[in-house]
Amino acid sequence: MIVLGIDPGYATVGFGVVHAVGDRMNALAWGAIQTAAETPFPERLSDIFDGVTELIEKFRPDAVSIEELFFNTNQKTVIGVGQARGVIVLACQKKGVPISEYTPLQVKSAVVGYGRAEKKQVMELTRVQLNLGKTPKPDDAADALALAMTHVRTFASQLYEK
Amino acid sequence: MIVLGIDPGYATVGFGVVHAVGDRMNALAWGAIQTAAETPFPERLSDIFDGVTELIEKFRPDAVSIEELFFNTNQKTVIGVGQARGVIVLACQKKGVPISEYTPLQVKSAVVGYGRAEKKQVMELTRVQLNLGKTPKPDDAADALALAMTHVRTFASQLYEK
Repeated sequence: MIVLGIDPGYATVGFGVVHAVGDRMNALAWGAIQTAAETPFPERLSDIFDGVTELIEKFRPDAVSIEELFFNTNQKTVIGVGQARGVIVLACQKKGVPISEYTPLQVKSAVVGYGRAEKKQVMELTRVQLNLGKTPKPDDAADALALAMTHVRTFASQLYEK
Repeated sequence: MIVLGIDPGYATVGFGVVHAVGDRMNALAWGAIQTAAETPFPERLSDIFDGVTELIEKFRPDAVSIEELFFNTNQKTVIGVGQARGVIVLACQKKGVPISEYTPLQVKSAVVGYGRAEKKQVMELTRVQLNLGKTPKPDDAADALALAMTHVRTFASQLYEK
């Protein structure tokens, strides 16, 4: 199973691709789609849409795992992040890839084992569990890998429960 | 000049197409793209994107006029409306149509003449100024026509100032 994790944003969209066989996982790729502040917003949205589409074409994920947005997200950026998230979800839908969304609490629970873990712990355990030498950069890419891992674990536990 | 006004939303996207020759305007079409609550959200976004794309292909607008979103918008729906607005802006960008955004204050000023006008006055003056027998329905379509008129007036006044 291949899962594409996405940490939505409009300046930086983190992504992480995880390959899983049962519980064993490894990271195939990670990074960020970045758009410049001086680029008109409609063009930034278009670049994000194209970038996600390319990732899907390249890695052919079975699922996309994306962070759920809440109203208590940064008030200054929530409108922009919401719009970016819209075009990310659209890119997945247009490519026929199912999307699952997870809260930060669910990510912490899946990666660290408890929902009140600190961000730093999530990053360190993401690195260790994916057998990476260094913590993936930027932070948005590490977050995206953690989202992908969360989907693998949630999906696996659902299968076991059946 | 043909302007497509859009009142963004995810359940109802109001649209209104205005044809303007100088200050004279008439409405070519109005209505709403509607998506059902039981449809999965990614599919709703896809339907909105396709609907806006079709409107652009049909009416070939010179510009799109869309409402600016603010954080003080309904807190329960802002994340959903933001995502819908993202795919609407993307549809315009992909078709190469320039987008202008206006605040409710700018719409009231342009249509009624002062920024503290009531919604009902905006609707009535939209109807009168576009020579329509009845107030366009749904409300979202009337809002969209007002947005299109706002762009025509703002654009015209900018030309006069040059």
